[in-house]
Amino acid sequence: MSVFRSSRFSRLEPYVPGEQPRERTYIKLNTNESPYPPSPAVLQAVRRASETLNLYCDPTALRLRQAAARVYGVEPEAVLPVNGSDEILNFAVMAFCDGRIPIACPEITYGFYPVLAALHGVKLRQVPLRADLTVDHRDFLSQNCTVMIANPNAPTGLALSLSEIEEIVRSNEKNVVVIDEAYVDFGAESAVALTKKYRNLLVTRTFSKSHSLAGARLGFGIADPGLIADLAAVKDSTNPYNVNAMTQAAGIAALEDNGFYMENCRRVAATRDETATALRAMGFELTASVSNFLFARHPAIPGEELYAKLRERGILVRHFSTPSIADYVRITVGSPREMQALVEALREILA
Amino acid sequence: MSVFRSSRFSRLEPYVPGEQPRERTYIKLNTNESPYPPSPAVLQAVRRASETLNLYCDPTALRLRQAAARVYGVEPEAVLPVNGSDEILNFAVMAFCDGRIPIACPEITYGFYPVLAALHGVKLRQVPLRADLTVDHRDFLSQNCTVMIANPNAPTGLALSLSEIEEIVRSNEKNVVVIDEAYVDFGAESAVALTKKYRNLLVTRTFSKSHSLAGARLGFGIADPGLIADLAAVKDSTNPYNVNAMTQAAGIAALEDNGFYMENCRRVAATRDETATALRAMGFELTASVSNFLFARHPAIPGEELYAKLRERGILVRHFSTPSIADYVRITVGSPREMQALVEALREILA
Repeated sequence: MSVFRSSRFSRLEPYVPGEQPRERTYIKLNTNESPYPPSPAVLQAVRRASETLNLYCDPTALRLRQAAARVYGVEPEAVLPVNGSDEILNFAVMAFCDGRIPIACPEITYGFYPVLAALHGVKLRQVPLRADLTVDHRDFLSQNCTVMIANPNAPTGLALSLSEIEEIVRSNEKNVVVIDEAYVDFGAESAVALTKKYRNLLVTRTFSKSHSLAGARLGFGIADPGLIADLAAVKDSTNPYNVNAMTQAAGIAALEDNGFYMENCRRVAATRDETATALRAMGFELTASVSNFLFARHPAIPGEELYAKLRERGILVRHFSTPSIADYVRITVGSPREMQALVEALREILA
Repeated sequence: MSVFRSSRFSRLEPYVPGEQPRERTYIKLNTNESPYPPSPAVLQAVRRASETLNLYCDPTALRLRQAAARVYGVEPEAVLPVNGSDEILNFAVMAFCDGRIPIACPEITYGFYPVLAALHGVKLRQVPLRADLTVDHRDFLSQNCTVMIANPNAPTGLALSLSEIEEIVRSNEKNVVVIDEAYVDFGAESAVALTKKYRNLLVTRTFSKSHSLAGARLGFGIADPGLIADLAAVKDSTNPYNVNAMTQAAGIAALEDNGFYMENCRRVAATRDETATALRAMGFELTASVSNFLFARHPAIPGEELYAKLRERGILVRHFSTPSIADYVRITVGSPREMQALVEALREILA
């Protein structure tokens, strides 16, 4: 830290992304990427966009908003494209939280929410999960807070039902409810349609997992145009041209090819369920994940040790040191072949 | 504005980018883009990067930092790549300004600085230019402010000398001095080497103008590693994967091809000087711009009218309504052919 840093940020604790080691080739099951590359239409769209990179991209991302609006059944004015969904979460905390409006979120969830709250000096009410790691939606009714829930939740993979989400949204009519649907395409119910009914609901999406675009950085906020206008005002005050031309083109092509990606999501879900069955047969306990990762523990081996022994064998998974989930590892669902390698490595470790 | 917007932002006035009309094809001389497309090496690098977009980009952008460090003669730890240089300006205001540390900048300069100050609740001391539109560097000595100067300045195109910049940096040792070098490659002296001598100097760069990558969104902060660590902490708290994989690849290729782009900058500078001569012969008064735009007024026609009449003829330039520069238009230096069309249109208008 330099002597020049504002005292507001003297204790900044940035988010720590999953490791990206370069010293050897790992089977990477630690950052919830898709094992499948983007579709040929995406590659072609990127190539075309790259030829005119000397020109600015459209700061309003109009064609991308129109493409997303068609797929999600909303108006283009209900969509804000962003440079990865972390950006829309940041904008939401800026726009809808402050010293008087704290955030309520599950105690175990995406680790970026507490980072954002700390950054912007917003109080955070962290609500414990039930013993079975599920979110009790009744804990989030009638809060005087901005409510922020990942659905499915991370790293548990467990989802609330649409009716539970709707109850949360309805009971918090004076505050914004953010439903982070990063993993929704792998098996949970989306709340996007509710954005047309409730003006306090913001649904966030990322194309990093379901649409094979982690490296392109593309996310969306979907909400009533009133909320979207607030978020766009923050965007235009921090980085007006936030989504580059290649990513806008890739996003349009991916949305036009949405069936291809939904089929990929179904393949990932099938691989997930097969792997879960194999792991249960080996004595693992798993949450009933509906996302593109498994959350697993074994009575015979602590989570940190499991992580380390897999790493020795060239397989990266993610371990969180938070005490209540320290027994677990989070395992991204890769290709069937990668999951076969995982199962074999686990057999060796447990032998 | 929705009822949910935090009261902090009730009067947010976002930056308004130059217009990007779609109803007809214009000669676009209004957003300071390069008239030259990116080099073949950039296109190839983008194509390769697009094939693995299902994987996250490197959040530390290590190879890109190394490539920039080689070109700019600094350490990789002295470089922070960002999603366009607006992003590094935002990070700098967050990291180094607050209620106690205002910003001092020229009264006429890049319009994004006041937007950032207002967004973050930071006071802004706007220092008037001299009558000839130059910045008097003595106005920025020994301030108790974060100093923010575009060099060359926009929209005047006028630059301070390196010794004047150094005097500003040296006299403000307790505060950060931000030198925004968006336009430096077209003819001004860079302060990058001074970042190795002064730990309070942040130089910002963009590849939008000099390196034909406006659509890719790529900027850099270059400073002592202490300042860079502060800015990286803000980055990792708002958007850890801020520069996408395609743009990282494009940036590396552009840096490896730096000679190609510096030659393009010389071509633009030559076109600028030829066009300035032609305009002076028509009675225009121009600043001695060392950037990739001209700043011109004509005694016979107000700036707004000139803008409108050029627009009617299919040529977009930029007009600012700020009273002290309302007589002027800012004209991006395009290709020789585009500038020929501009000169012909101006002849018609003045006939």
